[in-house]
Amino acid sequence: MARLRLRISMSLDGFVAGPRQSVENPLGIGGMRLHEWVFPLAVWRAMHGLEGGEVNASARVVEEALANIGATVMGRNMFGGHPGPWDREKPWKGWWGDNPPFHHPVFVLTHHAREPLEAEGGTTFSFVTGGIEAALDLAMRAARGRDVSLAGGAQVARQYLVAGLVDEMEINLAPTLLGSGERLFEGVGDDLHGLQLVQTVTAPKVTHLKFVRR
Amino acid sequence: MARLRLRISMSLDGFVAGPRQSVENPLGIGGMRLHEWVFPLAVWRAMHGLEGGEVNASARVVEEALANIGATVMGRNMFGGHPGPWDREKPWKGWWGDNPPFHHPVFVLTHHAREPLEAEGGTTFSFVTGGIEAALDLAMRAARGRDVSLAGGAQVARQYLVAGLVDEMEINLAPTLLGSGERLFEGVGDDLHGLQLVQTVTAPKVTHLKFVRR
Repeated sequence: MARLRLRISMSLDGFVAGPRQSVENPLGIGGMRLHEWVFPLAVWRAMHGLEGGEVNASARVVEEALANIGATVMGRNMFGGHPGPWDREKPWKGWWGDNPPFHHPVFVLTHHAREPLEAEGGTTFSFVTGGIEAALDLAMRAARGRDVSLAGGAQVARQYLVAGLVDEMEINLAPTLLGSGERLFEGVGDDLHGLQLVQTVTAPKVTHLKFVRR
Repeated sequence: MARLRLRISMSLDGFVAGPRQSVENPLGIGGMRLHEWVFPLAVWRAMHGLEGGEVNASARVVEEALANIGATVMGRNMFGGHPGPWDREKPWKGWWGDNPPFHHPVFVLTHHAREPLEAEGGTTFSFVTGGIEAALDLAMRAARGRDVSLAGGAQVARQYLVAGLVDEMEINLAPTLLGSGERLFEGVGDDLHGLQLVQTVTAPKVTHLKFVRR
């Protein structure tokens, strides 16, 4: 049974992005601190065409997170975010570059319809205006039996969490404070919809908390 | 050098107490879920005069947390909380019972002066109106070279964190959501004042994150 798997990095005070997110600063002020643990990893560098790097306890977590994923769902802001309708003259292509690191179909939740965007390396971006269940349905079909990655950001992650549609949640807890910004669990309430902590992996600069729906 | 050591249980969404705290429900709605990991432990049961119980990875964490503590600082709400001046006719004795589990001097931060309260088993409660530095100073003297425990609640913990006075912070992260209530890091900003993650201990129902000021 294919599953919807969320993985997201969060600060000790619960933020997944810092304040004042913008096209220039997509993670908000200080948001990059949430991801410092991943950049030195060999597995991350290889994904981005770079050699070398470290191998530590996080490596296996990242490898497992990438394994058996057939499609991705993400929010408009994560695709690359200016608000409002797309510019028809020069439509924004997101900040994933010419060769995005997905290599599979990606479904972008948006209020503004748009033709699909085909990138190099097997990544296609489809724009879904029908809401989270429609996007999940499309992604599940596209994944052909493999799992679907829920890439974020916070707003979309929250919608799937509240709907009880997340089968696996991996939180990369960064031991740092952002103080303000976007909270992962804001408005989610007190219900994890059966997600239970099944594994904790300790690594330099991060604690990986893996929840699975039972 | 004696240190100020905070240990506190926090939900995945950052709350250390649930909503609607009251004399009847000091931890707020759902707040007890933050502490479920501790009640089955043999070390916790022994502290409260009970036999039996479990021994798991949390046991050593609790033992270490209790070791070498010579005094405790806590907030008025943690002592036992009705707001406003003390009732002189029948002053509230807190909810720690006749034989509180401290067995050393406890300094309660309050806006309302009051005579010290002597309990069984070596616990004395002194009421400090001079603010967090005065309380810390008194506690350090009373501890005679041993460390001082910062027992909470959130408001007092935040004040010491913001002032950069916490030397060790152990967060018992409960894999649950409270949805609302009192956040440990609300208003603390983005500065941990040199507190760095040095140890993560995984146990059933809790992840212990230990930060030390470097």
